[in-house]
Amino acid sequence: MVKIALDAMGGDNAPAEIVKGAVQAVAADKDCFVYLVGKEDKIKECLNGQQYDSSRIEIVNADDVIETGEPPVMAIRRKKESSLVKAMYMVKNKEADAFVSAGSSGAILVGGQTIVGRLRGVDRPPMAALIPTKDGVSLLVDSGANVDARATMLVQWAVMGSIYMENVVGIKNPRVAIVNVGLEEEKGNSLVKETYPMLKECPNINFIGSIEAREIPNSYADIIVCDAFVGNCILKLYEGEAKMILGKIKGVMISSLKTKIGALLIKKSLKTQLKSMDASEHGGAPLIGLNGLVVKTHGNAKAKEVKNSLIQCVTFTKMNINDKIIEALSQIPEQHN
Amino acid sequence: MVKIALDAMGGDNAPAEIVKGAVQAVAADKDCFVYLVGKEDKIKECLNGQQYDSSRIEIVNADDVIETGEPPVMAIRRKKESSLVKAMYMVKNKEADAFVSAGSSGAILVGGQTIVGRLRGVDRPPMAALIPTKDGVSLLVDSGANVDARATMLVQWAVMGSIYMENVVGIKNPRVAIVNVGLEEEKGNSLVKETYPMLKECPNINFIGSIEAREIPNSYADIIVCDAFVGNCILKLYEGEAKMILGKIKGVMISSLKTKIGALLIKKSLKTQLKSMDASEHGGAPLIGLNGLVVKTHGNAKAKEVKNSLIQCVTFTKMNINDKIIEALSQIPEQHN
Repeated sequence: MVKIALDAMGGDNAPAEIVKGAVQAVAADKDCFVYLVGKEDKIKECLNGQQYDSSRIEIVNADDVIETGEPPVMAIRRKKESSLVKAMYMVKNKEADAFVSAGSSGAILVGGQTIVGRLRGVDRPPMAALIPTKDGVSLLVDSGANVDARATMLVQWAVMGSIYMENVVGIKNPRVAIVNVGLEEEKGNSLVKETYPMLKECPNINFIGSIEAREIPNSYADIIVCDAFVGNCILKLYEGEAKMILGKIKGVMISSLKTKIGALLIKKSLKTQLKSMDASEHGGAPLIGLNGLVVKTHGNAKAKEVKNSLIQCVTFTKMNINDKIIEALSQIPEQHN
Repeated sequence: MVKIALDAMGGDNAPAEIVKGAVQAVAADKDCFVYLVGKEDKIKECLNGQQYDSSRIEIVNADDVIETGEPPVMAIRRKKESSLVKAMYMVKNKEADAFVSAGSSGAILVGGQTIVGRLRGVDRPPMAALIPTKDGVSLLVDSGANVDARATMLVQWAVMGSIYMENVVGIKNPRVAIVNVGLEEEKGNSLVKETYPMLKECPNINFIGSIEAREIPNSYADIIVCDAFVGNCILKLYEGEAKMILGKIKGVMISSLKTKIGALLIKKSLKTQLKSMDASEHGGAPLIGLNGLVVKTHGNAKAKEVKNSLIQCVTFTKMNINDKIIEALSQIPEQHN
């Protein structure tokens, strides 16, 4: 049984969609146990009338909530009775294996580092987001945690990302590439130029060189390494542009009677195709390299994404990802640490 | 009359499409004079049968060509007889006002700095690409020249970009934003944190704060400032993702008889809509801050993009952009230089 502390109060759709996601996850995976951490009365209201295995969902009361706009460090320090802090302490105290929240990214990052704590050998845990590509999904790491990074960190992220993609997503010998402005080895900013030869020498990873951002949507690499400033820009542009283009196409489709009829004819096929581009199918973004697992879902996550994030935690824990990370990091040559 | 030295041999479609672009530009703008620099016999072949005002197109023979893969510094130094180097020297020697090429980006950047030379007060000339957004177009600066940037450079780019957007694109009091991972002032990597307060204090620009990459497609800012590593990633991802999504939609449309009929009904409206997302409508990416003007078009540019780039050069020169840049940069407070 994998026990997950779920922040029932975090995110735009909390607690209703969060609770619904827990119910769906428990139904879908018999090894999934969920602690719903948050305001007991509100959670009970949401559970009311739902069918679920009550031996695998338990409410843990938390009276406070961390809001999205709050300065993270302060919030983590002061709001000890918040759902986020209480749920994270459950991971720290080994009462839970993993933590999931749709709440404040800042608070999740700070809490992950200061409450849950880093795994032995990990300098800076990165946020690793799965992004939909032409033929599947790629792991963008770091997508949000460390905006000023050093070369040694990027190497660790490549190793951790490889373990994640191999064991959680199921891709054999996953390809690692570093985000760059060109393919030649002499290209890059100073960080990339320093990191490139280190990745080349790093054991345990299948390093294929640089990737230009243009090729990210084309499934050219399974793990895409960059600092979190670049990664966050890529992630957000990825979401924003898709939305803009699909909005334009939708606008075209409803622009006249003729196009409306046309739209009806392609609607179903289009939906199926676009579903393959929906990252929420794969759950949230894990903060890798912690003593436990912390997963951040989108702030506007619905039940499906919450469910998938919980199942992602089950796989992560059952595959002993953290032991594999400790083992692999210890094999990186000295100069890289 | 604005005289432009056009590298007739650069790019995937040279010289045919380049020459065709020159013919179209001269027809469209009576102030446009083009030197077609390259292999005379080949250019003559392309001009053969075309209708144009022969008093405004002149061939300048150049026997050599710089290939895309060549190391730029070496190529610029050694290939004095190449179309690119010869055309750039025409700008340096004031025989031409501007230079346009679809050739090697690296050679254009190096040549721009070393042959054409920087404008007084400019630390590092940036590449400024126009990207299509929901309601129009935004200038992404630096999109390719300086991958390791300092705060003072970004401030200069904001000023130069504002002048460009106001005078060449025609946007009054254009909004400047800095690419960031969040909207709060304390967000950012060290470069952004240092640059932000300097942009706030900078006169002559309409600084509106940070922009998250997600909002770039939504026309939230007219000038988007970032280092060229981030900018190049944004630019390339922007192009790559649009291509991937449109490819998927095209795939849907031809997937069955039903969808094919549907596609026929929306095709025309869709094309009109997608045309507004075609950056080539606005010409190429200028390297701003030089003694003259250097414009880089896409490697695969067709006649239309070449034509638009040439007309862009006419506007740039007639609006005295460089005088305006020198004047505006001299007004930035001392500590910013």
